This record gives sequence, structure tokens and C-alpha cells, in this order.
Amino acid sequence: MKVSDLGERRLLERIRARLPKPPGHVVVGIGDDAAVVEVARNTRVVVTTDALVEGVHFDRAFSTPADIGHKALAVNLSDLAAMGATPVWALLSLALPDGTAVEDVEALVDGLVGLANANSVALVGGNLTSSHNQIVVDVTAGGTVHPRRVLLRDGGRAGDLLFTSGTIGAAAAGLEMIKAGLPPSPANEQCFSKYRRPDARVRLGRALSATRAARAAMDSSDGLADAVRQLAEASGCGAEIDASQLPIDDGARRWWVSQGVDPVDRSLVGGDDYELVIAVPPKWRGRLRQVTRRVSDPSLRCVGVLTRTANEYVVVRDGRRERLTGGFEHW
Amino acid sequence: MKVSDLGERRLLERIRARLPKPPGHVVVGIGDDAAVVEVARNTRVVVTTDALVEGVHFDRAFSTPADIGHKALAVNLSDLAAMGATPVWALLSLALPDGTAVEDVEALVDGLVGLANANSVALVGGNLTSSHNQIVVDVTAGGTVHPRRVLLRDGGRAGDLLFTSGTIGAAAAGLEMIKAGLPPSPANEQCFSKYRRPDARVRLGRALSATRAARAAMDSSDGLADAVRQLAEASGCGAEIDASQLPIDDGARRWWVSQGVDPVDRSLVGGDDYELVIAVPPKWRGRLRQVTRRVSDPSLRCVGVLTRTANEYVVVRDGRRERLTGGFEHW
Repeated sequence: MKVSDLGERRLLERIRARLPKPPGHVVVGIGDDAAVVEVARNTRVVVTTDALVEGVHFDRAFSTPADIGHKALAVNLSDLAAMGATPVWALLSLALPDGTAVEDVEALVDGLVGLANANSVALVGGNLTSSHNQIVVDVTAGGTVHPRRVLLRDGGRAGDLLFTSGTIGAAAAGLEMIKAGLPPSPANEQCFSKYRRPDARVRLGRALSATRAARAAMDSSDGLADAVRQLAEASGCGAEIDASQLPIDDGARRWWVSQGVDPVDRSLVGGDDYELVIAVPPKWRGRLRQVTRRVSDPSLRCVGVLTRTANEYVVVRDGRRERLTGGFEHW
Repeated sequence: MKVSDLGERRLLERIRARLPKPPGHVVVGIGDDAAVVEVARNTRVVVTTDALVEGVHFDRAFSTPADIGHKALAVNLSDLAAMGATPVWALLSLALPDGTAVEDVEALVDGLVGLANANSVALVGGNLTSSHNQIVVDVTAGGTVHPRRVLLRDGGRAGDLLFTSGTIGAAAAGLEMIKAGLPPSPANEQCFSKYRRPDARVRLGRALSATRAARAAMDSSDGLADAVRQLAEASGCGAEIDASQLPIDDGARRWWVSQGVDPVDRSLVGGDDYELVIAVPPKWRGRLRQVTRRVSDPSLRCVGVLTRTANEYVVVRDGRRERLTGGFEHW
């Protein structure tokens, strides 16, 4: 059977099924945003890897080399943020076709290092190799986390409120605008930059971890609907989203309305948001206020709740309950 | 300018020149076999990444998927061994064309996990993505090292003896035999397996670190000549190799003689050895005996000496001094 017939999630499950039970010092293994390993007593490191492949994750017609370098690190820092970790180091593995311009490689490194510096992350090493016709940018990032303050996906319980940081849909709309050849303008700049140079919510993740304000967390790299489903599934819950509360990016909303597309449907499934989605018990809202006092940007918006009915994912819209779809698979 | 015009080493130098000075907790940054980061007081982690690209590092006609998975981890464990580190975890990032057989992915994972288990390494996570037409297997490995016992490339001094572990040339000869369609036999099995499933010298690296028997170390992934040059260059020395002492693999020697190729020349530049090359002051030979008592396989052979004349690399052969060439660049 081909991987394209099986699908990404089922391939991942097949791989997981072949692994031995991890030893005790692997605190979190495969299945969360990142892995957590206890390397010494009371010292836990968090590690994650994510690749950007030309023609799959980026197109050089739509992003500059510096954008690509920035994003390759951002998607990894986002995974660390979703664990409540403090990022420390990164490794860059580049596969480059022979004809790649040296200036483009330098610009890619500059884009990555710019974001690294802004987050006090050191690029400590990597690997260079040739490839046939696609650039592959594989970044690994590592950090540290307080032993008792790791944010996991599976900690949610029925009744927990679901929050997302920032806005949703901007990156998905931005890619559509770029493909449509829209010129940059103040109205769409936010969408362009969310697609090309996403932020990673590192400060927010650290504040959530430090205050223990969230019972579960993951990042919305494949869109809000996907993150809500995965967090709920890992927590053995269902989820209900209130469509009226979705913080849909203004530029994205205008774009979709102009295209005759429903902004709610589209923003829920749009990927590349890299916001944090968290589950918070109602009585912990005081702790959450501590977080928003520390980190005012991005804001947090309550968009739904975890429910008792496992595997039931609902979006409530004008009083109607609809099935929540969404999620992205490479195959 | 294209990367293929510039060359790998110069591209790496251009990249390094763009990085800021690393912070104090980055004990070893870019330029050694792996990076060392102090994540807590007296706790240092060692991290490295290395990719195998289809058509560049492997050909599915010459290696099974399990071989590829094994080797993808081995090349990373070899880098950790060359730092004196104890490997702990690995991440696997796979880029797979749509038509890749699921069974091949499973076999690749099995090959990797087999070697991981043998070295008490846990596969803690990774990433799956699609690619156009090449499989890319990118592995990151991490471990721990005693703060004062890291093995670096640049610690050598003139007069230090140069040792290599194991034999040289078997992997390079093995690839030639496989390409020539030679059937497996007891005489060439060692060459086949050294190419397809190299060992990583993890126990030896740990023993060298624990006894402080080596002043400098690196692995010979690009051949003995390359390792000797790089270690000598990093240490500000020259190097002299004694051709009569080279532990050329028996099967490789017979193969090259049968092909009319000089075994000394060829084994010095042949890549994929993944042995450890170390510099040891003559008066530390007692410590080295402690190492060989702990780790009898692979054996260590003295093949040369570091000299005072920086950038002069010599191989002495039947009394003649020849220039030592060798080293591999992707472009």
C-alpha cells in the first residue's frame, strides 16, 4: 500500500505501534506537540522537529528565502510554546539542489537567525546536503521546561473552557491573496505576514506554564478545528465551538466575503495559524488573568468548551449545531 | 553564485559568518561533530542532526529500507560518540513521495529502532511530510555528556599520536562491490555490512571521555584523511600518517588489488567509515590501555602523529613523503 492511500494519521499510528515502550526518563514521547526527556534529576528538555519542503509547504514565488527561514524556525518554536517550554537552541538541516543561489541560502539563514535572536535561541549546528530538485528545510528546536509545568494535550476535562490566542484565518487568507496576485496594502498586510512570517507564541506558552493556568494546550498549526479536535480527543472529551466568538482576522473576513466564501467555515479549517489553543477550568480564570497581565499580546478569546461526549465535535451557529470538520493530512 | 560553484565548506563558512556570537550556555556551537549546550548547572546536552537523501546518500537498489533507517541513526550516534556523549533520544523527520510503500516506511522505522534499542536510545518524536520524488530521512539525536569530559576536535597538540578505531575502507569498497553486482560471500560480507549498516562507536566514545584518554576526537564519516586533516586543522597542527600502519579492511584490500586500485590511496579517502579518530599525548597511553580494557572491540591503531607545521598533511610511504589528499564535499 502507498502512503498516499493510507493517510498521514494512520501512517503515524502504524509507526507508533512499532516502537517499544519508552523508558521512564521519556516523560512525553510521540503524540504531543513536542517530546519531553528528563536528562538529569529535575532537568527536562523539550525537543521537536518540523520540516518545510519546497512545493509542499512553500513556493518560492510566494515567500522570500528570509520568510522561509523565519517560518521554518517559527513552526518549531510554536511546538515548544505549546508545551510551555523555554526555547534554547536550534539545529538547521538544509537539503539544497545544486543550482540554489548562495545569496538565497544566506537570506534564509538571516531570516531564521532574526527570529532566533528575538527569542534568545542559539543556532548551534546543522547539516548541509545536496538534493535533486526541492529545497528541504528541516529544523529541530530544543528547550527546557519546569518538571511540573509541562503543558500537554491530554489534560483537558469536560467543562474546561477552550481559548485561542490571537486571530484565526489570516494565514490561510493571506496565501489565497498571494496566489491571487493581490498587491500588498494596509488592509491585507496582516494576512500576508501571518502566512509568510508567523509568530510563535513563546512568551504566552511560558506564562501559561508558569501560572499553571491551562490544563491542556496545543498549537493550531493545522487550523483551529484540527487543534480543538486533537486536544479534545487526547483528553477523552468532545468539544463545542461557539461560531459567534471566533476571533476571525478582519482582513481575512473581508477577503472571504468578497470571494463569496463563508468566513466561519473557512477560518476554522485554515492552517498555518500557529496560535495556542488551551483548555482552562472555569475556576482557573483568575490564573488566566495573571497570564494576560503578563502577556497582553496576543489576546486570548474563549471560543468553546470541552464536553462529556467523546468524539463529538460541534460548532454552534445561530442556534444550530453543526458537525465540526477540519484537519490537514499530507496524504 | 550557485551552491555547486561555491562548495560545501565555503558555504558553511558563509553561514557561520552570519551568526551572532553564541551565548555562554552554548559550550560548543557550529564546527564540531555535535553541539553542546548547558541546559542547567552542570547538565550539558549534546545535539546533532544529519540527513540521508535518496540518490545522494543512498540508492534503494543498494540498501534495504531497514538498512537506510539503521544508517540514518548510526551517522548521528557516531557524531555523539565523537563528543564522548551518551545518546539518549532521537527524532525522525521523514519526507516521503506519495508512492512510497507503507511497508518500506515500517521497515525503515524498524531498522532505526533496532539500532536505537541496542544503544538504549528512545525515538521520542518526529515529523512526516510529503515530497516530490526523493525520500529524505533526517534524524536528530541528543544525549548527555560530563561537563569536563567533552571530546573536541581542537584539543590536539603537536606530538600527539593519532589513532583510528576499527578498520578503514570497508564501506567504500562495499559500495563499489554492491554497484559491481558482486554476490554476498564470507569474504565481502564485512564490506557490505559496513556500507549498509555501520556501527556507531558509542561505547568507545564514552570510555574515551570517562578516562580522559583523548585530547581531541572526531568521527571519520568522510574518510580517515578528511578526519585527520580536520582534527589537525582545528588544533592548529599539521599531521603525518604512516601508510604501513593503516588498518585497511582485508576484504577491501583484496577487492582493490583485484581492481588494480591502490588500497592505501583508496582507503584513505573512502567515506562512510564512522570510526573514531583521536589524538593522544604519548604519556597518556596508560589511560588508553584503560579504554581498550573496557572496550576491546573495535581495536585502536596508531596511524600517525600531529606535527608543528600547520596545514601540512603528509602520508609517509616506503620512506617517501606524499601530500595527504581527501575529503568529501556535496558541491
